[in-house]
Amino acid sequence: MNIAVAQSGGPTCAINASLAGVFCAGAKSPEIEKIYGSLNGIEGIIEDRLADMSELLKSEEDIELLKRTPSSALGSCRRKLPDHEKDSAVYEKITDCFRKYDIGMFFYIGGNDSMDTVAKLSRYYADKSIDIKVVGIPKTIDNDLCGTDHCPGFGSAAKYVAATVQEITRDSNVYSAPSVTVIETMGRHAGWLTAASGCIRANGESAPHLIYLPETVFSDEKFIADVREQMKLHKAVIAVVSEGVRTADGRFAAESHQSSKTDAFGHSYLSGIGKYLENLVSDKIGCKVRSIELNVMQRCSSHLASLTDIEESQRIGSAAVEAALNGKTGCMMGFKRLSSNPYLSEIVDISAETAANNEKFFPSEWITPEGNNITDEAVSYVMPLIQGELPPVMKNGMPRHIIF
Amino acid sequence: MNIAVAQSGGPTCAINASLAGVFCAGAKSPEIEKIYGSLNGIEGIIEDRLADMSELLKSEEDIELLKRTPSSALGSCRRKLPDHEKDSAVYEKITDCFRKYDIGMFFYIGGNDSMDTVAKLSRYYADKSIDIKVVGIPKTIDNDLCGTDHCPGFGSAAKYVAATVQEITRDSNVYSAPSVTVIETMGRHAGWLTAASGCIRANGESAPHLIYLPETVFSDEKFIADVREQMKLHKAVIAVVSEGVRTADGRFAAESHQSSKTDAFGHSYLSGIGKYLENLVSDKIGCKVRSIELNVMQRCSSHLASLTDIEESQRIGSAAVEAALNGKTGCMMGFKRLSSNPYLSEIVDISAETAANNEKFFPSEWITPEGNNITDEAVSYVMPLIQGELPPVMKNGMPRHIIF
Repeated sequence: MNIAVAQSGGPTCAINASLAGVFCAGAKSPEIEKIYGSLNGIEGIIEDRLADMSELLKSEEDIELLKRTPSSALGSCRRKLPDHEKDSAVYEKITDCFRKYDIGMFFYIGGNDSMDTVAKLSRYYADKSIDIKVVGIPKTIDNDLCGTDHCPGFGSAAKYVAATVQEITRDSNVYSAPSVTVIETMGRHAGWLTAASGCIRANGESAPHLIYLPETVFSDEKFIADVREQMKLHKAVIAVVSEGVRTADGRFAAESHQSSKTDAFGHSYLSGIGKYLENLVSDKIGCKVRSIELNVMQRCSSHLASLTDIEESQRIGSAAVEAALNGKTGCMMGFKRLSSNPYLSEIVDISAETAANNEKFFPSEWITPEGNNITDEAVSYVMPLIQGELPPVMKNGMPRHIIF
Repeated sequence: MNIAVAQSGGPTCAINASLAGVFCAGAKSPEIEKIYGSLNGIEGIIEDRLADMSELLKSEEDIELLKRTPSSALGSCRRKLPDHEKDSAVYEKITDCFRKYDIGMFFYIGGNDSMDTVAKLSRYYADKSIDIKVVGIPKTIDNDLCGTDHCPGFGSAAKYVAATVQEITRDSNVYSAPSVTVIETMGRHAGWLTAASGCIRANGESAPHLIYLPETVFSDEKFIADVREQMKLHKAVIAVVSEGVRTADGRFAAESHQSSKTDAFGHSYLSGIGKYLENLVSDKIGCKVRSIELNVMQRCSSHLASLTDIEESQRIGSAAVEAALNGKTGCMMGFKRLSSNPYLSEIVDISAETAANNEKFFPSEWITPEGNNITDEAVSYVMPLIQGELPPVMKNGMPRHIIF
């Protein structure tokens, strides 16, 4: 029997570690002959674009490089499958490909759109009594998948956000004049990554003085009042704001400044809350103000990856192969936290359907009553996930990547 | 005799290493008793805000942390001195402070505005026959100071830019659809930092496919033509553009989108060329496009500092103290490159006036004839400066900084 693996959705620093995990477990198993990598997610299966992973990963060194290479080495896609009851053509194409390559197990590393594919494909096979196992491996810097304590990729993004907000805090404190720095983080609906900036409090920082998550109602007036209040206490006020903060009417706070483009899943392309608030502070308060968008560096800065995240991401990839070998299908692998201090977790599996159709929001009890910062419980949750480093393999003073 | 040291201008990753260099050389010298740090540059001297550095740096560990802490630990300012012939009041204040603290040597770490202060102050002391030595220590991520092969702080910023452009290149290549990524780098007048992105070619990358420096004439039409050309060759086109690119009429290419604010030196606050070009590509080509501003992370990402840069920055700080002890004044310390491969440099001193009143632009012979990329000579120049790492001291999974 052969297996196939694919990557989908937005890049992270850890999605390749999960690929390494699938490859290593597959290579070790006597039941598995070949491991195929599908290029550009499920599209590669549909279009018969498969690569023999053993030709891509020829040595231990290649695997170590893969774990240190950001983004999806096999490429990605954002393709959503129709319900097979309505349109089964694409399912037949997928199955033809699996049969052609004698693939008995398919592993899909991705976010909740990918888990939707896992759920639909496994349901199709159950309905048709076809014995092909389909198992999902979570991945998202947004940390918003249900059924798992946290998501591979989040820890590294969180570590980058925390370390960078700390460095920006140094940068913000050099002049004697009062100033406001607005840092915009990713997080369309869930505030996990934005909240991670609060970890720097563990290092004795007073910043971030204000943290705004999509889970609270944002208002320009309250923001300006909050900034004025913090300016009484701190020379350089640092506010970290999620791209997805919304006003009481449910609209994105900077919606009028946003483009109206949407992707295949109907998500809007967001950007600009930082710049919007910069202009707002300039207008209403008139002090020195700047905005900084952490942009894709949040998800691709492998040079500062969390060792905990990379190791767990590899482990969960391997666990998916073991689960499929044990007969599991239609599930997503996840982490169950056993303890935070010392940090202990175990790998579990949950229904891919549950993961696909739910979002895990930042708990309201971890947001301060004022709605403009996070509690120490939130910091305690994130802290174990950002621990440890996986130093890049350097070449010419720059990280070395593997490119398929 | 006591000495004073201050930091000025925009933050870098290396300005604190130069401070460490001054402190270490001062502490070692039998002729020097106390080392005072002036808070917020020359302002601290004028306003009598001095700190005894031996109370701030109590151990070897503190010095190691200082070298790993971004931005100016003593704070900074952007204050320009008047000519003393026209207005000598501030010079008298400065001299009163120096006399009060028995300061015989003053070291000013900064860019060309700071070298202007070094030149003016030393000329005042020459005119008044006052024996106080004033020596400048260069610092700028822009690398645009004359009389030195390169500037402390540039190597670390260059390493960050190269490593980050390489990571963004991974992030840009995941989807099968053609795309354009515009990366905006700092560099108001000089393109050195933007050019540093070209170093990733040494790691086998085809990116950046386009590089635009302020030293060439920028045009929207040529840019769009260049992008179209590169899209024939590469699925994901990466263009790196300096914030300071200008059109034939000498205006910043995105000037209409810029704010009209200026600082005390008459510099405009720039931002937005990336976003401007993103919109331009969207309008004219209509493909998937995004822009990423590397922002202040270019100058404050100490976690990825260049060891070569940090070591040289410390050494040049120590060399400034030795130069002053040898009677030098009114000068700026600089590097003379003896060879690139193997890399060898020595420390020299040049007139602060020359440094203050000139800018070192990126050589036109290192720009390709098309004006949209750099030559291999440019890469060879930058490469030695980004070599080596100085891993941060980690605490709670985040870099540890020292805060005075």
